[in-house]
Amino acid sequence: MLTTDAMVEGVHFDRRFSSFFDVGYKSLAVNVSDVAAMGGTARLALLSLMLPDRTTEGDVDALVDGLSALGSALRITIAGGNITRSPGPFVVDVTLTGSVRPRRVLTRGGARAGDGLYVTGAVGAAAAGLGWLRDFAASPESAPEDAGLAECVARYRRPEPRSRIGGLLGRTRTATACMDLSDGLGDAVRQLSAMSGVGARIDAEAVPVPPAAAAWFTAKALDPVRAAVAGGDDYELLFAVPARRTRALKAVVAQSRGLTVTRIGQLVDEQNVVLFRQGNAEPIPEGFVHF
Amino acid sequence: MLTTDAMVEGVHFDRRFSSFFDVGYKSLAVNVSDVAAMGGTARLALLSLMLPDRTTEGDVDALVDGLSALGSALRITIAGGNITRSPGPFVVDVTLTGSVRPRRVLTRGGARAGDGLYVTGAVGAAAAGLGWLRDFAASPESAPEDAGLAECVARYRRPEPRSRIGGLLGRTRTATACMDLSDGLGDAVRQLSAMSGVGARIDAEAVPVPPAAAAWFTAKALDPVRAAVAGGDDYELLFAVPARRTRALKAVVAQSRGLTVTRIGQLVDEQNVVLFRQGNAEPIPEGFVHF
Repeated sequence: MLTTDAMVEGVHFDRRFSSFFDVGYKSLAVNVSDVAAMGGTARLALLSLMLPDRTTEGDVDALVDGLSALGSALRITIAGGNITRSPGPFVVDVTLTGSVRPRRVLTRGGARAGDGLYVTGAVGAAAAGLGWLRDFAASPESAPEDAGLAECVARYRRPEPRSRIGGLLGRTRTATACMDLSDGLGDAVRQLSAMSGVGARIDAEAVPVPPAAAAWFTAKALDPVRAAVAGGDDYELLFAVPARRTRALKAVVAQSRGLTVTRIGQLVDEQNVVLFRQGNAEPIPEGFVHF
Repeated sequence: MLTTDAMVEGVHFDRRFSSFFDVGYKSLAVNVSDVAAMGGTARLALLSLMLPDRTTEGDVDALVDGLSALGSALRITIAGGNITRSPGPFVVDVTLTGSVRPRRVLTRGGARAGDGLYVTGAVGAAAAGLGWLRDFAASPESAPEDAGLAECVARYRRPEPRSRIGGLLGRTRTATACMDLSDGLGDAVRQLSAMSGVGARIDAEAVPVPPAAAAWFTAKALDPVRAAVAGGDDYELLFAVPARRTRALKAVVAQSRGLTVTRIGQLVDEQNVVLFRQGNAEPIPEGFVHF
């Protein structure tokens, strides 16, 4: 498999919020996340850089260091790339190859009504972290004193792609459909449901919002669950598992090195997507726009 | 093999000079040229688009049509891609996979002193075409009345990557080194020589400059050979062939469907790169800057 995803200054990153190391790291992470969501293992990356005239050699070195740090950790070969000038924003476009055995590929469209919906890790952390950065960032190294919120900022700057569990879910045929939360949980649930030709019901109480993120949203007069579901940049995986594969899922989770997996709802016949809270169905918050 | 090359508005293309069809076509062509220069066969392309807000659906359709036109002709699968917003220029980044048998890959660094230097097609056509566009283009469809110059403009807008001969030169082990003329013949000779650890001597009289391009350069008070050697965007191949493989080269050319191949000089021990004209050695013109 082959995937590509670009990070554009002013759209996907802001130099006040992220260092070039962060940008390099994240540019690879978002592609690894995409390969993981397809059940693949990332292999070779190619880097295409478009640099404004003001770019320094130190900026490029830091970016490549960030990309290489994640690449080494995941044994991804950086196979080369291309550098050109940009009269506008800084652009980092990464292409990644991944391998997967035939018929072990995870798609967005394989789920059925009745399948449980699960999400890895936590939802809303990156959105809360970005919120804090917008309000307070003085430099790309700044972080809040609150450890929980600092973790949210770190999740925004350097998301941890769920490469291990993605591959396991595919290889063991545990999941019937999978995608990542690049544009938010709400968007992912909508897409996975639509591609599978079903609807979805998310239980608001089950959505794993980190306490620091929930507190941040509450302080900003936002409903924590709706803000978390609408927020993007989490790069967790959303996947569907039929009841008969619940045991296989337990085995997958046991091999996932402490990563939490939460059941947040299920797929249903009726083709709409709702957030269930205290017996009432609300529409799922609309998707996410970067800046 | 995996290669990537971006076309950035204002750096690699100008909307006054090229239609979106042209830009799509060329964005794939330049990558095919790179694969051909390595002796490979292009297989799968991935398209990453960064679109300014003013972009219309028609612009994107035209671009994809242009890319697909070349893709179909060369049996390259367009495997998908990514679209995102750009707050600056229009960016088209194409990644291409190519296949080649091990030990049949052509590099820039395999040539030796004594090898002949050859170039496909003609040199300087694209530079002359771009020159005309800068002086006269009223719209991306405009072309000069002079058929030869119109051909130069067409070469600039839609270069024809030398995919067939590139693969043949690699498979038959005819060439010891190869690269394409994306940044001009002068730049390519310099790079191939440096990577091979040798020098080069180009015979000015042998450089195949199309008559219409030569006339254009002369009218602009430029030396035709120096302008052609300095000019970029030709996407011809430069390659080195040892004397003992001259016969193999003839066989390759015979299979190349009428493509001309010209011997323009040879590689030498002394490590500098010169243009020989009427018994005098001149330095090779410096490389090419896009806009």
